[in-house]
Amino acid sequence: MADTKRKADIGVVGLAVMGQNLVMNMCDHGYTVAGYNRTSEKTKDLVEGPGKGMAIIPTYSIEEFIDALEKPRKVMLMVKAGEVVDKFIDSVTPHLEEGDLIIDGGNSHFPDTIRRTKALAEKGILYIGTGISGGEEGARHGPSIMPGGNPKAWPIVRNILQDISAKTRDGEPCCDWVGQDGAGHYVKMVHNGIEYGDMQLISEAYYLMKTGLGMTHEEMHEVFSEWNRGELDSYLIEITADILAYKDKDGSPLLEKILDSAGQKGTGKWTGINALEMGIPVTLIVEAVFARCLSALYDERQLAAKTLAGPSKKFEGDRKAFVEDIRQALLASKIVSYAQGFMLIREAEKEYGWDINYGGVANMWRGGCIIRSVFLGNIKEAFDRKPDLYNLMLDDYFRGVLERCQDSWRNVVAQCARMGVPAPAFSTSLAFYDGYRSSQLPANMIQAQRDYFGAHTYQRTDRPKGEFFHTNWTGKGGEVSAGTYNA
Amino acid sequence: MADTKRKADIGVVGLAVMGQNLVMNMCDHGYTVAGYNRTSEKTKDLVEGPGKGMAIIPTYSIEEFIDALEKPRKVMLMVKAGEVVDKFIDSVTPHLEEGDLIIDGGNSHFPDTIRRTKALAEKGILYIGTGISGGEEGARHGPSIMPGGNPKAWPIVRNILQDISAKTRDGEPCCDWVGQDGAGHYVKMVHNGIEYGDMQLISEAYYLMKTGLGMTHEEMHEVFSEWNRGELDSYLIEITADILAYKDKDGSPLLEKILDSAGQKGTGKWTGINALEMGIPVTLIVEAVFARCLSALYDERQLAAKTLAGPSKKFEGDRKAFVEDIRQALLASKIVSYAQGFMLIREAEKEYGWDINYGGVANMWRGGCIIRSVFLGNIKEAFDRKPDLYNLMLDDYFRGVLERCQDSWRNVVAQCARMGVPAPAFSTSLAFYDGYRSSQLPANMIQAQRDYFGAHTYQRTDRPKGEFFHTNWTGKGGEVSAGTYNA
Repeated sequence: MADTKRKADIGVVGLAVMGQNLVMNMCDHGYTVAGYNRTSEKTKDLVEGPGKGMAIIPTYSIEEFIDALEKPRKVMLMVKAGEVVDKFIDSVTPHLEEGDLIIDGGNSHFPDTIRRTKALAEKGILYIGTGISGGEEGARHGPSIMPGGNPKAWPIVRNILQDISAKTRDGEPCCDWVGQDGAGHYVKMVHNGIEYGDMQLISEAYYLMKTGLGMTHEEMHEVFSEWNRGELDSYLIEITADILAYKDKDGSPLLEKILDSAGQKGTGKWTGINALEMGIPVTLIVEAVFARCLSALYDERQLAAKTLAGPSKKFEGDRKAFVEDIRQALLASKIVSYAQGFMLIREAEKEYGWDINYGGVANMWRGGCIIRSVFLGNIKEAFDRKPDLYNLMLDDYFRGVLERCQDSWRNVVAQCARMGVPAPAFSTSLAFYDGYRSSQLPANMIQAQRDYFGAHTYQRTDRPKGEFFHTNWTGKGGEVSAGTYNA
Repeated sequence: MADTKRKADIGVVGLAVMGQNLVMNMCDHGYTVAGYNRTSEKTKDLVEGPGKGMAIIPTYSIEEFIDALEKPRKVMLMVKAGEVVDKFIDSVTPHLEEGDLIIDGGNSHFPDTIRRTKALAEKGILYIGTGISGGEEGARHGPSIMPGGNPKAWPIVRNILQDISAKTRDGEPCCDWVGQDGAGHYVKMVHNGIEYGDMQLISEAYYLMKTGLGMTHEEMHEVFSEWNRGELDSYLIEITADILAYKDKDGSPLLEKILDSAGQKGTGKWTGINALEMGIPVTLIVEAVFARCLSALYDERQLAAKTLAGPSKKFEGDRKAFVEDIRQALLASKIVSYAQGFMLIREAEKEYGWDINYGGVANMWRGGCIIRSVFLGNIKEAFDRKPDLYNLMLDDYFRGVLERCQDSWRNVVAQCARMGVPAPAFSTSLAFYDGYRSSQLPANMIQAQRDYFGAHTYQRTDRPKGEFFHTNWTGKGGEVSAGTYNA
């Protein structure tokens, strides 16, 4: 501890890999960090192992830990989401003073963060719940950090969090204030949902090249590598190219030996449930979650494959042109997915009373995290042009891309339908695009049916909204028995 | 009260329209019924109004109500779902004896029914939670009734419930025991989700005929009328034909004056959330719920319609043949939707420890309720052939229909994509069909990506399930650093 200051700038509770890496990341940026772990081995492992020589103050009791902190004390929890967070809040709080700060850096569900921010504010303790994305590597060298909570807390840790965060290609920190109470964890949840969507879109593109066009892994590797040099330049496209090139010991592509059965239990599911609860049609993320669910029904699919027939149609046409069609379908679908994600955040902002920094959100996702991409720079620019942009698809740049890509996108969806290649995410995003740009949808039929069988009433296009009508439908062609009342 | 017996066979609490109609339905079948309502006006309205001369015992206090019941007492609650049910349970229970029965006939969420069945069993009181479908008309003359709860309760009310229920065309009651605790309300929830799906499919067919083919309402009325004489024969197709024929006062189709903005807040949403929670890909119902959400963004769509371009392609081909394609697409999509619904029920059976009577469920839905149809007779037959049928699509009859319809179905989805007509339910069901019958899906790519960025490990097709591997992907072409461990 020779070169540490007497007191620590911040303390981290929970020294598993993520916590250890964040501590070292902070030290790299000149901060002195107190560390505490429930079991002392991890603490010793850190200071005698990878953190040796760094400005880390190891502590072995909560009291010692708190005592090591400069005031206002900043306590960062890197512990398992759920009850464990509440447990540590309860054990730390009695030792804190008004104005001290607790930061939860785990993958907490946002309603918990809303609750905790409020409960601690009543005790005069500041609280931040922050999403952190980028895995172990990100934690060590620069993650995407999405903090929300008590706004008074932000100035106190802004420098530390922005210093340790990833930076965009322009050098901006991938960490900014998201909004009040649960906003940070909410945005992290949507990030993960979008990650599900991006991965599904890439998988559909790969599958279509493989089964629809019969391309080799070398060819697909080349395609993804090329895509990574253009509009689709992103971490996930980059690793997809790597994966396609990777050979198993026998020299064949390892990818084809990996079981096609994916798990889902976390934040993608939360995003879908929240979208249903709030009534926002986040169709692509939900299809991505369901595609994983379907993949997990592995044995059932083997049985069905023997029973259910597919079409006989094979791909006809220009293969090279079709690969470009797939690229454009992926890009257009991705725009829809991010537009849906931001629609959800916009609704959450209203629902939970937040003030969301949309451009900031795009910027935070530009580096450090799994969905980092050039594309997110385009989104940032869209919000720079129009901070109150209503929907991403209505931005001039993205509208132009959609217009330019739509013929290819339509061709891909049509060909998949005819060839029997499942492409649920490409399909649902196109259906959404066509629905969203329809001044009239067939919901008038649904309203008529509901009024017919349940007298649920309907509104009329030729009367002010808020007037409700009921028709006695079974009196065919007869008098309209419409009452006007406010339901 | 001259012609009533001294004691009532059953009592109904809550005499709003649904409760009143059930009471009168019971009287029609020879039962004596005690009625109680929190406010006495409704009780008087019933016995002096529509229930005049019927075997109804009006009561004006809980004590008087309980005292009017033959033992074992059967108390049916027809009150608002939620806290009100708990309130009435609490006020009735102290007056009941071991072996008495409470029936909740409202639209309760199934977890509440699970909780209530267990809590009352501890007090020796039997409990049934039952879905009732068919609206006011059904309640009066024969609804679909889906009871679940304490199995000991079923023999006690079986006769009453089956007597007042709808009957299939073969004369079988549309009421049978569903399963333990929350099973009845669960099945009602899925019924409502399927209803959302059926309505969406019909809406897409109508919209495609209207905007894609430019058909008149007379032509569409004829088409739906004809469809109602074949495989699609059902209540919803029938009322759709009626709706298309209905003229407003000015002689134009009323349908086109109805605002295309549909609400959703209830059981369709619950079904989607439950599907996400259990990991079952119920894609069609969720798309139907989201289609309503999108329709509700009415003002936003008007703006988008001015901004976002569609394709220039119009329908080319044989219009009459395409109408038949649409019929086949609807039929095939409907099979997928019901298959998904039964997949969900199957998973719930495992999750909640029920023993579901699948053929019984199909039979209950054949009459009385909104989704009643000839189609449900086919489903009943499938479960008669094979009571442990794994998936509806694997039944010989439905497999044959899917095989016969698939070219048309594919053509409809492809044409919608090319013409820019949104058909999310037709599309998602086709993608599901193609995914379900795929022995290999692209989830191997998702697993590779997850292992690449998060060391989440994967399983291999050439190794036993349950062995997990990790690869150091960035060492391109290098050694596989795979550890085998059970996560």
